[in-house]
Amino acid sequence: MNTADLGLPVDVPSTALFTDQYELTMLQAALKAGTAGRRSVFEVFTRRLPEGRRYGVVAGTGRVLDAVENFRFDTDVLDFLAERNIVDEPTLKWLAGYRFSGDIWGYPEGEVYFPGSPIMRVEGSFAECVLLETVILSILNHDSAIAAAASRMSSAAGDRPLIEMGARRTHELAAVAAARAAYVGGFATTSDLAAGFRYGIPTVGTSAHAFTLLHDHERDAFRAQVDSLGRGTTLLVDTYDVAEAVRTAVQVAGPELGAVRIDSGDLLLVAHQVRRQLDELGATRTRITVTSDLDEYAIASLAAAPVDAYGVGTQLVTGSGHPTCSMVYKLVARAESADPQAPLVPVAKKSTGGKTSVGGRKWAARRLDADGVAEAEVIGTGEVPADLVDRQLLVELVKSGEVVAREPLAAPRARHAAARANLPLSATQLSRGEPVIPTEYVQGRSGS
Amino acid sequence: MNTADLGLPVDVPSTALFTDQYELTMLQAALKAGTAGRRSVFEVFTRRLPEGRRYGVVAGTGRVLDAVENFRFDTDVLDFLAERNIVDEPTLKWLAGYRFSGDIWGYPEGEVYFPGSPIMRVEGSFAECVLLETVILSILNHDSAIAAAASRMSSAAGDRPLIEMGARRTHELAAVAAARAAYVGGFATTSDLAAGFRYGIPTVGTSAHAFTLLHDHERDAFRAQVDSLGRGTTLLVDTYDVAEAVRTAVQVAGPELGAVRIDSGDLLLVAHQVRRQLDELGATRTRITVTSDLDEYAIASLAAAPVDAYGVGTQLVTGSGHPTCSMVYKLVARAESADPQAPLVPVAKKSTGGKTSVGGRKWAARRLDADGVAEAEVIGTGEVPADLVDRQLLVELVKSGEVVAREPLAAPRARHAAARANLPLSATQLSRGEPVIPTEYVQGRSGS
Repeated sequence: MNTADLGLPVDVPSTALFTDQYELTMLQAALKAGTAGRRSVFEVFTRRLPEGRRYGVVAGTGRVLDAVENFRFDTDVLDFLAERNIVDEPTLKWLAGYRFSGDIWGYPEGEVYFPGSPIMRVEGSFAECVLLETVILSILNHDSAIAAAASRMSSAAGDRPLIEMGARRTHELAAVAAARAAYVGGFATTSDLAAGFRYGIPTVGTSAHAFTLLHDHERDAFRAQVDSLGRGTTLLVDTYDVAEAVRTAVQVAGPELGAVRIDSGDLLLVAHQVRRQLDELGATRTRITVTSDLDEYAIASLAAAPVDAYGVGTQLVTGSGHPTCSMVYKLVARAESADPQAPLVPVAKKSTGGKTSVGGRKWAARRLDADGVAEAEVIGTGEVPADLVDRQLLVELVKSGEVVAREPLAAPRARHAAARANLPLSATQLSRGEPVIPTEYVQGRSGS
Repeated sequence: MNTADLGLPVDVPSTALFTDQYELTMLQAALKAGTAGRRSVFEVFTRRLPEGRRYGVVAGTGRVLDAVENFRFDTDVLDFLAERNIVDEPTLKWLAGYRFSGDIWGYPEGEVYFPGSPIMRVEGSFAECVLLETVILSILNHDSAIAAAASRMSSAAGDRPLIEMGARRTHELAAVAAARAAYVGGFATTSDLAAGFRYGIPTVGTSAHAFTLLHDHERDAFRAQVDSLGRGTTLLVDTYDVAEAVRTAVQVAGPELGAVRIDSGDLLLVAHQVRRQLDELGATRTRITVTSDLDEYAIASLAAAPVDAYGVGTQLVTGSGHPTCSMVYKLVARAESADPQAPLVPVAKKSTGGKTSVGGRKWAARRLDADGVAEAEVIGTGEVPADLVDRQLLVELVKSGEVVAREPLAAPRARHAAARANLPLSATQLSRGEPVIPTEYVQGRSGS
């Protein structure tokens, strides 16, 4: 399996067109004005968490690295831009040679974030950095929204495994990224074969109602499934009558039956009934999987029910009410030339209508209390206070255009579990509330 | 531009892996049981519209046709399935030769739909049809959700053009599909270059706040932009002080300035102020584009404001509160053999826990009142009543595996405008309500 992004399609030979047109027209105007080379710092951050959420989860960083690496303007793309008169000849020439040669720092994938956290920082010439805005935001806004929902669901599920099964509820490639983000957020497996192929996430699945309906009798369907997939399979028991189906299932598979799945009805009630019936039939080790319209609240409400695994679809891939984050990519500082020694000038939108931000190239650190629990997200410009130097959050991801921080997907998954565990306990309350730790701004000695 | 799906990625050489694992395990079990060849009819429908919505919009049909055409199991995919032991050897052999050879009928893209509408009907052997479930639902659920939001926004906008600019708020390839669905729903243009490349949708864009902040003075930025992009460009006027920026903009570009864009603040108030100021400065033909957090309600509230165009991002690509539809793909009838003459038996899930559906192979027609306005969505099995024969909704899309209904994207866009215009006037009310026409079920003489 190579590292090319699954999102790299045959018809768009690179990620360069996952870009809003204005990035290219700004480039053209800056090239002509002689300002395109000014050393610039862009930062990705969010002004607020989705309403009521206690923390955010950074996801998609690995995909961003793939996208940056594959961001180039091939002949097909250049021909398109020329034909449509989107940019002029000098700009096309410049784009033909484009490779990002700057630096990217960011919160490592799986880390939690808060309002104002500089989740990613992109530095280089204005020209090379501005082009990356759209694709970086697409990836981080989508993947982080899914991971945040996944994290809430996985804390609600405790030790019980979660199955991601939302492919049918979202765009077919968003589904693959969603399965990846869900894994980072704590899901165990996915139904999506492309996510298994691309990212090595364990895949699962046995049968749907159609399989029972295909056969003349439910018993025939169960027998066909057990004959082919073995007694350890999961039989779907709610096509006709659940109690009748459970009886038939154990008759066909014996007490070695792996699991039954319930996909409709009052799951709390039905799970108790099915558990009692399975136990009476001697199938005491047969597990119960539930899969009907679950979200983190439904999962929490089933904590005391005899449920062994949860399958989650719609609510996962739509971010459980928040299908996107509000991350933005803003120019926060720039020099007056390309000279690496030229001083950076902090910049920020100032109009009174909102959407203002804090200028300057930022660091971030998480301050801990005496018990080692997170107590504040500290963000500043200039020098990092001595007591926070070891608690800094940004790590180097791309150095002079070279990706330096690839990691297997198990790493952000473990990192997320650890970061969440290090937050105050109220972080995992599902009720609406404020961010679980405050964001504090510190002005260092040499601002910028 | 060829017809290969933009979603066709280098690393997944076909659409076959955009599939839940259980489709393949059902196939394996059915092959072994000798039931895989049973002639089957699957239908895509939705049990309800998103809460409060008056109608749904079918979108993604053209992408489904691409996905079906590209659904094949290449060596890479087969190797993956074998390595992971997802299916057995006979199933792998069967998959190696897979090409869909059945028939697909459906509502033409852009058509409106209601609860129960058989939006798509897939017929063939159980084996060949069941495999297509996940990717068909992914595409229709995503694209139709976006098109429904787009349709509400375009009816709220009236004759004023809508710009799709949500790429940064959703997965980078979902964004391309979203731009396509928005165009079907009535949007005029997109910011997404990949959507222009892939689907020929007109692209637009000029500059962001970063461009102003890059320069030492707002005036320098405006001059740079006008020098490069011409006086017809759109200048963004809310980086610092709006009134000052408008004055500078007209000084720099003259009254020929194409447009100004306002991206923050109280749009209603600011639009009036800016219009007055532009008129006083003699820039009476300079247009005003607004782009801040718009949805259909905000667009409607600006109907009386001097606004010339709307740019919509987040709320469009997240379906304005409903980021997915609840379309399902259900086996509704099957024969007891592969024989094309074998009678179809209607089937349906029957358990008491909800999610039941109506069995049988269905037709659908839209009944009109005396004035030619839609008054009911009529769905039935068996023979179509004589008075509805000419009002049938399903058209042939794939015949014996061959796509027979390709069309340029202008066709579903025009079709949607016509279909919406043919609904009762209350269809375009933005307030919550019931579906604008009822769904009626008719049992024909020879059911199934």
